[in-house]
Amino acid sequence: MSDIVEALADIVGPAAVSSGDAINDDYTHDEALTATAQRPLAVVRPASTADVARIVELAAATGVALTARGSGTGLSGACIPVDGGVVVSFERMNEILEIDLDNHVAVVQPGVTLDQLDQALKPHDLVYPVFPGESSASLGGNVATNAGGMRAVKYGVTRHQVLGLEAVLGHGEVIRTGGKFVKATTGYDLTQIIVGSEGTLALVTEAIVRLYPRPAHAATVLAPFASLEGVTGAVPKIVASGIGPLLVEYIDFITMDAIRNNYGVEVGVDPAVKAQALAYLVVVLEDRREDRLEENTEELANLLAGLGALDVYVLPSTAGAKLIEAREKAFWMAKAAGANDILDMVVPRASIPQYMAAVADLAQASGSLVVGCGHAGDGNVHLSVFQNDADVRHDLIHDVFAAGMSLGGAISGEHGIGTEKKAYVAELEDPAKLALMRRIKAAFDPHGILNPGTIFDASEDSP
Amino acid sequence: MSDIVEALADIVGPAAVSSGDAINDDYTHDEALTATAQRPLAVVRPASTADVARIVELAAATGVALTARGSGTGLSGACIPVDGGVVVSFERMNEILEIDLDNHVAVVQPGVTLDQLDQALKPHDLVYPVFPGESSASLGGNVATNAGGMRAVKYGVTRHQVLGLEAVLGHGEVIRTGGKFVKATTGYDLTQIIVGSEGTLALVTEAIVRLYPRPAHAATVLAPFASLEGVTGAVPKIVASGIGPLLVEYIDFITMDAIRNNYGVEVGVDPAVKAQALAYLVVVLEDRREDRLEENTEELANLLAGLGALDVYVLPSTAGAKLIEAREKAFWMAKAAGANDILDMVVPRASIPQYMAAVADLAQASGSLVVGCGHAGDGNVHLSVFQNDADVRHDLIHDVFAAGMSLGGAISGEHGIGTEKKAYVAELEDPAKLALMRRIKAAFDPHGILNPGTIFDASEDSP
Repeated sequence: MSDIVEALADIVGPAAVSSGDAINDDYTHDEALTATAQRPLAVVRPASTADVARIVELAAATGVALTARGSGTGLSGACIPVDGGVVVSFERMNEILEIDLDNHVAVVQPGVTLDQLDQALKPHDLVYPVFPGESSASLGGNVATNAGGMRAVKYGVTRHQVLGLEAVLGHGEVIRTGGKFVKATTGYDLTQIIVGSEGTLALVTEAIVRLYPRPAHAATVLAPFASLEGVTGAVPKIVASGIGPLLVEYIDFITMDAIRNNYGVEVGVDPAVKAQALAYLVVVLEDRREDRLEENTEELANLLAGLGALDVYVLPSTAGAKLIEAREKAFWMAKAAGANDILDMVVPRASIPQYMAAVADLAQASGSLVVGCGHAGDGNVHLSVFQNDADVRHDLIHDVFAAGMSLGGAISGEHGIGTEKKAYVAELEDPAKLALMRRIKAAFDPHGILNPGTIFDASEDSP
Repeated sequence: MSDIVEALADIVGPAAVSSGDAINDDYTHDEALTATAQRPLAVVRPASTADVARIVELAAATGVALTARGSGTGLSGACIPVDGGVVVSFERMNEILEIDLDNHVAVVQPGVTLDQLDQALKPHDLVYPVFPGESSASLGGNVATNAGGMRAVKYGVTRHQVLGLEAVLGHGEVIRTGGKFVKATTGYDLTQIIVGSEGTLALVTEAIVRLYPRPAHAATVLAPFASLEGVTGAVPKIVASGIGPLLVEYIDFITMDAIRNNYGVEVGVDPAVKAQALAYLVVVLEDRREDRLEENTEELANLLAGLGALDVYVLPSTAGAKLIEAREKAFWMAKAAGANDILDMVVPRASIPQYMAAVADLAQASGSLVVGCGHAGDGNVHLSVFQNDADVRHDLIHDVFAAGMSLGGAISGEHGIGTEKKAYVAELEDPAKLALMRRIKAAFDPHGILNPGTIFDASEDSP
């Protein structure tokens, strides 16, 4: 047993450290399609913030890399360890420490899952509104990737819900940031720089998140359009109406067929309409009052009819829920279909048609297939790339990202950069910003032990 | 004329630089009660991002300190120059570059005022929802202080509205962050670390901000309570109801009297009720539909009656608007009354009564008067401190901040630290966090030329 493994066992007890063949394969990968699994030197399962601080102190003293891990449901390789490194798994720090009904916040440990939190909030008629599509995901992982999901159009994303953190810096110092309030200007916002930093700046040991009243009633409206422009042109009108949709999604006809075939979702679209429909808009409304929901649904249906929808369907609640659930599983459909990579670029939502046209041209020119659907309300476009040749694929994806960036977009809307998109970041991002990010990392993690090689490599020379 | 002044004139033209006696006194101070005015070496008024970049390059090469200035309405001294330094006034960069109706964002230069933006948005039935109480404030200043105001309970604060920035780093490099979208996980969130950094990390030259539909109808409900606990106890119930208030304020009876006397606001409270009322709750609701607003107002009134309100008044729209306007001018009332300092600590909103009790004890023990009111919905408490002896006052304020921090609060909710609260930050904040903030500043501003001495001093040894 190596000195490191022994020292880890001294901190957390031997039962909470695995090494060598005792390491379960699950710890060697996440759900990224392109990543290579990597066995770590050890997996350590701390039970407390004090444990985490001692683990970081040990790593800082020995130069061992630490990779934080929640549920391992990430899509960018950010929780894959480095060779010789240690996985810090937060599975034992999985307690909801507080549901504070007076301040409408929850205080959670990083290993708490979205489903666990949701179950605990239901009896209080409250909701934590981030639903990235995988309810087994951990809050710690959500904080690390700034998880998004379909409800961003109403509630924003993880960073809008995280009010404070407890986190361990790269020398093992424990800090607390923010608090149970939305308002603070007391020095730099350390909470927000840690959210979305994919484990490279600090290890999060506690988070204070916002809670909202849980609306009792929801309705799903489906509107087929003859073109993607029809869908995206409708979105600003829906937002401007003040109806306040919970989610606004577009689904292309290929994905809609896949949902029908794979999930047996029958949405009852007339065959004559279906033949013309190239793009579907799905809008979910919610309200605390059923009468208002009905009025809003009718108003929305009329609005969509006036905006060129081929037809408008108000789905029965079970069909609506099934459609959304199936839409959330788009990743699994892409994986099952043999996609080589998945992208989740974000562009200004009004630029989606222009972006998709550019993507189609690039796909054709490279002899590849690129299909997808996306969050029409927030400009986040999910694409599945089918191209077996790695070099051709890399060049295609480079160009697809470049096309979106020229429209003012960013490489990832919610999956993060991890290890799997960092080459594109190195190729396409402003070097001044990358250099600034490296200096910020050094400010948090002077020894470079926290998830090295994620988002960017330590040196400017390596990709 | 000094070399610096000449070099500045070469960049922006001689008409856009002032020095010596030609500098208007306005540039030597903001609205902080405690700060000492300071004349700069020069005031420079850039017209473009390129101008700003060249100014920063000059400063980096010569070590001259730069202090960004918007409208000068700040309350913490953050735009007061240092001796021998240069004020960078954004008054000429005051253009609304774009109102993007498809993506619901505005792109503004830093010198644009809140009032200017509001006037431009009204014809589109849109609103930029941050109203910090001073509509002559600039957007650049709002970004620098992460301005808040009363509407935070519904919309959050400035940082929740800023989606992207153009900014000049401390070597003169121009970067663009974020974009016209709410969702991104593409490296560290540089936007959010710059928002609220009070001009110490970068000079902001452009901002992309979110816009919202402008609800057509609003109503103001006033409820007197026999105690502050009554007011703060009602807040979570209002939030949980799902009515979605625009603002939730408490006003103590002393401030309410001052509002009556200074602004002639007559809210029609029954004299018998007035005699018992120690604290007033003010709730403003808004809705796109008048019928729903009326229903919600009635529901709220019933809720408040059941929560121990002595009475409930739905104010006529003019009286409601006047009351809110007067409440927004609380600072000017405090100043007119001879307050020596004003504080804007934030605590978890449910802790307001406990905090106010601690403040009352500390005030009494030090022979001082401390009065205030605050944002009951978000825990931000505005206090006016009357104590002429500077040493006694410092110790009192130190203790008042310490009391709030022990409840999980932060020193400033929206005014910022500036120069005027930095001594308390140095005394009370976690040294590990301060050291981290100094390292972050160095990452952005290696020469230490951007607003030095604001939030904290460069060295750990000075206060």
